[in-house]
Formats: sequence, structure tokens, C-alpha cells
Amino acid sequence: MHYPEPISKLIDSFMKLPGIGPKTAARLAFHVLDMKEDTVLEFSKALVDAKRDLTFCSVCGHITDTDPCRICKDESRNRSMLCVVQEPKDVIAMEKMRDFNGLYHVLHGAISPMDGVGPEDINIPDLLKRLQDDTIQEVILATNPTIEGEATAMYISRLIKPSGIRTTRIAHGLPVGGDLEYADEVTLSKALEGRREL
Amino acid sequence: MHYPEPISKLIDSFMKLPGIGPKTAARLAFHVLDMKEDTVLEFSKALVDAKRDLTFCSVCGHITDTDPCRICKDESRNRSMLCVVQEPKDVIAMEKMRDFNGLYHVLHGAISPMDGVGPEDINIPDLLKRLQDDTIQEVILATNPTIEGEATAMYISRLIKPSGIRTTRIAHGLPVGGDLEYADEVTLSKALEGRREL
Repeated sequence: MHYPEPISKLIDSFMKLPGIGPKTAARLAFHVLDMKEDTVLEFSKALVDAKRDLTFCSVCGHITDTDPCRICKDESRNRSMLCVVQEPKDVIAMEKMRDFNGLYHVLHGAISPMDGVGPEDINIPDLLKRLQDDTIQEVILATNPTIEGEATAMYISRLIKPSGIRTTRIAHGLPVGGDLEYADEVTLSKALEGRREL
Repeated sequence: MHYPEPISKLIDSFMKLPGIGPKTAARLAFHVLDMKEDTVLEFSKALVDAKRDLTFCSVCGHITDTDPCRICKDESRNRSMLCVVQEPKDVIAMEKMRDFNGLYHVLHGAISPMDGVGPEDINIPDLLKRLQDDTIQEVILATNPTIEGEATAMYISRLIKPSGIRTTRIAHGLPVGGDLEYADEVTLSKALEGRREL
């Protein structure tokens, strides 16, 4: 036991966070000791509040402190477009962009037979229910460009196609500001495949 | 406002920690939402406890939940050796090594005229008081091998010399496992200067 107990407990707590090992945890814990008491109390309260007050929106599955969430309730949004993403974080990334004004559907995962995650383990049944009234005219599949994300997008598009709703996939290609030289082959091949006339 | 309020508050709290920017803070905050409620409550309590229950030992200045600290109270330790370090973290590093069985004195800083830190701004007066009874026979100066640390060590050694107490400085040289090729010139020059007969 090198540390007094209160600090070793705090280090243990920090170590439960992703990407934080024993050295970083110790550094953070010592920093907390140097912080003002008010700031520490605020931090402590923020942890509990975030855990207790946040739930998932019963409509779209996004993280929220009101149900339905602000996006689902917002009457000014385009209710004919539905963007399907894997995680609440993805909704936030989309919202930061400010270019999309439709609604979202969060799957909370992707189909991954290797990990035993099938279509019914993620939020797909709810998605199909949402598509039953005729409000939604386009479903944009914005799952990640990974094997699991692609498989999920393919699976959903096949389910939706028969209903006649337009189903699109976000484009894959070179990231803006990226360098052709450093792009991996798959990205480059996707970029070539998705080329458009100017 | 992209995030629901409870999570944006938590992100703000995480961003107050050193080395944590907005992206990492968001990742940590989302991780907290996935943690069990008990774990989050424990984390929240650990923060407050560490801040409230820890003080500095009135004898050596080390961080502690009892006063005097466990090291100062430990009768089995060698009370004739005193190791002077800059920060409580340094005591912990020394204790991890398990090779030193004496007492410590934490300066809480180093002399740095550039930052307006003089000898009376760090824990030097207390150090001199501790040296007045004749228990301590050797003072090991283990301040960091930086300009400030060196200056502090020099300053303290000059203060102590007249009293006849043995004053030593920890060795500087190549770190074990280090490569001569990659050592900086100053370290290499210190290593050469401190060479010993085999």
C-alpha cells in the first residue's frame, strides 16, 4: 500500500475508464487533490446526475434527459427523413454538422455474428415499426464503414426495400483534407467506385 | 447544444482534468453512462472523499489521511536518514522502490526565480527545523534533475553544510535499460562525471 486509502480508491475509479492506465489514473487523482473543493463537488454530482437523469428516448433510442428526446419532439424538423446510426455519439456527430434536419434512429450496436449480435439484439424491430406509418420517405443508413456496419446497412436495406421507401447509404471515400497517398486501398477503391460526374 | 445537459456538464468536468480534451472527455462521459450505477456512485464518492479526507502531514508534508502520516509514525523506519523530494508523488515513487527505509520531507515545489518561487515559498523552513534535533545524520536530496531541482538541491546543501550533517544528492546518469545512443548530452555528461571504479 503506497497510497493513502482515499487516493488509491480514486485511482481505482479512474482506472475503470477506457484508455486510462495506473500512471494516468494517479496523475488525474493527484490533480483532483489540487482542484478547488467546489469543482470536485460539481464533478462528483455531474457523474451521478448523468448516470441517473439520462435515459434512452423511447422513440429513436438517442440518449436524453426528456422522453421523447428534443430531436423527436422538435416540430421544425423534417419528419420524412430518418437517419439510422449505430450509437448516440453518432447522432451528436451528425448534429454538429448542422446539415441534416431529419430524425434519427439509434440501433445501439451493429449486427455481428462473431460476437453473437443478431438483428433482434439491436434496435431493428423498433425501426420497422416506425416505418409502418407513411411519414418516412427516405431512410439514410449511416452505420459505420466497418464490416459490421456494412452488414447491418445491407440487412436493413433489404428489409425496407419491399415497402418502397427510398433507402440510401452515406458515401465512403477520401476524407476531406486527407491525402491520396496515405489513403488505404479499401477507402481508395470506395472513393473510385463512388465517383461522380462534375 | 448538442448534448443533453447532464452529459455536457459531465464532459465539462472531465475536461478540467489534465491532458483531457473535448473528444476524450465525451468518450469518458459516454463510458460512464454504460457503467453500473454502483460503480458510478463509488467513483463520485471517491472524488469527494479524496478531496475532503486527505491533508498534508504536518511533519513531512506528504499527502495523508492521518496526521502525522504513516511513514512518519512508523517506528521501524530509520530516523537518521531524511530524503528531500519535491512532490508527494515522489515519495510514492521512492516507496515503490522499497530500498529506502528512512523518512521524507516534501518541499511542495522547487526554487524557481522565473516563476517567483523563492526558498521561503517551499517547505524549506520546516526542513531546517526538523534538522535541529540531532536524530538526522544524512539528508538525501532527491529533487528532480531539472534546473529548478538542481538549484533547490544546491541551495539546501549550502544551508545544511555548516551543521555538519551529511548531505548527498541522488545520482544522475543513464537510466537502466536506456541506450547510450539515445541519451541526451547532459545525461551522458552527468553519467561520465559520476563514473565509479569497479
